[in-house]
Amino acid sequence: MKLYLECIPCFLKQTLFATKDQEEEKRIIILKKVIKFLYDKNWDTSHDEIVNQIYNLIREETRILDPYKDIKKESNNMALKLYPSLKSQLNKIDNMEKRLYTAAKLSIAGNIIDFGPSSEFDLDKTINDVLNKKLAIDDFDILLNKILIYDNLLFFADNSGEIVFDKIFIEEMINIRNKPFKEIAFVIKGGPIINDAMIDDVYEVGIDKFPNITFYKIGNGMKDTGPNRKDKEVKGWIKNYDIVISKGQANYEGLSENKNIFFMLISKCPVISKDLNVEVMDAVIKYNI
Amino acid sequence: MKLYLECIPCFLKQTLFATKDQEEEKRIIILKKVIKFLYDKNWDTSHDEIVNQIYNLIREETRILDPYKDIKKESNNMALKLYPSLKSQLNKIDNMEKRLYTAAKLSIAGNIIDFGPSSEFDLDKTINDVLNKKLAIDDFDILLNKILIYDNLLFFADNSGEIVFDKIFIEEMINIRNKPFKEIAFVIKGGPIINDAMIDDVYEVGIDKFPNITFYKIGNGMKDTGPNRKDKEVKGWIKNYDIVISKGQANYEGLSENKNIFFMLISKCPVISKDLNVEVMDAVIKYNI
Repeated sequence: MKLYLECIPCFLKQTLFATKDQEEEKRIIILKKVIKFLYDKNWDTSHDEIVNQIYNLIREETRILDPYKDIKKESNNMALKLYPSLKSQLNKIDNMEKRLYTAAKLSIAGNIIDFGPSSEFDLDKTINDVLNKKLAIDDFDILLNKILIYDNLLFFADNSGEIVFDKIFIEEMINIRNKPFKEIAFVIKGGPIINDAMIDDVYEVGIDKFPNITFYKIGNGMKDTGPNRKDKEVKGWIKNYDIVISKGQANYEGLSENKNIFFMLISKCPVISKDLNVEVMDAVIKYNI
Repeated sequence: MKLYLECIPCFLKQTLFATKDQEEEKRIIILKKVIKFLYDKNWDTSHDEIVNQIYNLIREETRILDPYKDIKKESNNMALKLYPSLKSQLNKIDNMEKRLYTAAKLSIAGNIIDFGPSSEFDLDKTINDVLNKKLAIDDFDILLNKILIYDNLLFFADNSGEIVFDKIFIEEMINIRNKPFKEIAFVIKGGPIINDAMIDDVYEVGIDKFPNITFYKIGNGMKDTGPNRKDKEVKGWIKNYDIVISKGQANYEGLSENKNIFFMLISKCPVISKDLNVEVMDAVIKYNI
């Protein structure tokens, strides 16, 4: 996805949120630096690259490696608390396909836990909305078919907290298959960026306990944190797996040019909605054939 | 009101809206110029001054004096269409004080017609909400008292379309007084800025028909369009009138340091809400004693 002009004001909003615990004077310095960066930057680039560079700049200025560390822990805990009731909700569904579909919808609902486009969200309401509303794009049947046929899964995760909902979804995939995957590659961030899930989060919520699971890392723009979503290496991962699922907006922005990939997300801003041709707050499972 | 950092991303959003009919290339040039202006500018200034300078810059670049001209005409027409049904709604209320209170609420509801903080609004829903919800700050009784006692009114208008609702409110003031004001000074903009009402709008909706009405103009940052809200001249107007009413956010931002003035508005952004200590979308009649 190309960079939309509407993203530019949003970058400044994100800067203000990421620096909300700083003194006003410091915030002004950082905001001015981000403004200067945006002025100097050629906008004929990816959304990803700009976001990474802005967060690098914020990190340099604040000397805080991960301003969302506490928020991420809280999100995991909040989602883990919901885990038992969501599981018992699923256990009441006899039809296996309907169970998996509900779990897929829960995984999408978890995508609302996002401190990028907006810092305000209502998780309970979103779960309720997504479960009871029709998906705006619904390629679930294609996904179901692949889950039943193929033995390996590449899963691009998005946010902390949200990964608890992804865990439930993967559990239901294994459930409907009646056997584990031969391989699950779970893609997280190799360095902090907004509230995106990292390796600690995965351990916190127990995703490391799946059989045959392995972890790949996407970089945050800092050295040695992993490749960018546009890199050849990432395109190679996608080619190597039969089932490829991508959660959330940033992964959509970075990966939407690839084939054989399912995008599962809530469209949280007008820019993504325009690109997907859906309304803001619509939920989708979209397959790039 | 001081300039809040949260207003900075909003300035860029407004720039994008004001240039929405331009080619992408031109929009990038203008957005970059506004970004450069924000970088160079000392932010220890008023919100008003920055907004005026940004719209001056947009005017220079696009060579379009008033990008909201059509929108303003549409807003007036939309509100004028509602006028008969709103009047008949009022005519059903026997109690004169309740009638005036309802008209005051209608005038506040009209404040949703605003292309500054957001370009999306639902007028019918807002009218319904404001009429049926408690005002978050309600100094109506003090205002009522002044309307009954005093004979002159200074009214800072805000947006096109909204002024139709203000007309209804002024009609009800005259109604409860049983006689016209000796003077009504209606303050509009002397040059185009966002969708703010100008002299043409006043004629379009018939506000010029009130007895003893006169018009004052606030400038838009261009030469000879009128004084800024912070100017001595404007403070002089406020001192000369017994009843002073200010509609909307920008007037609140510019005039909140004055005394003996009523602010009537819907708080449409987190910054104004923080300053007023109310929630976003709350409606208020706030008297600065």
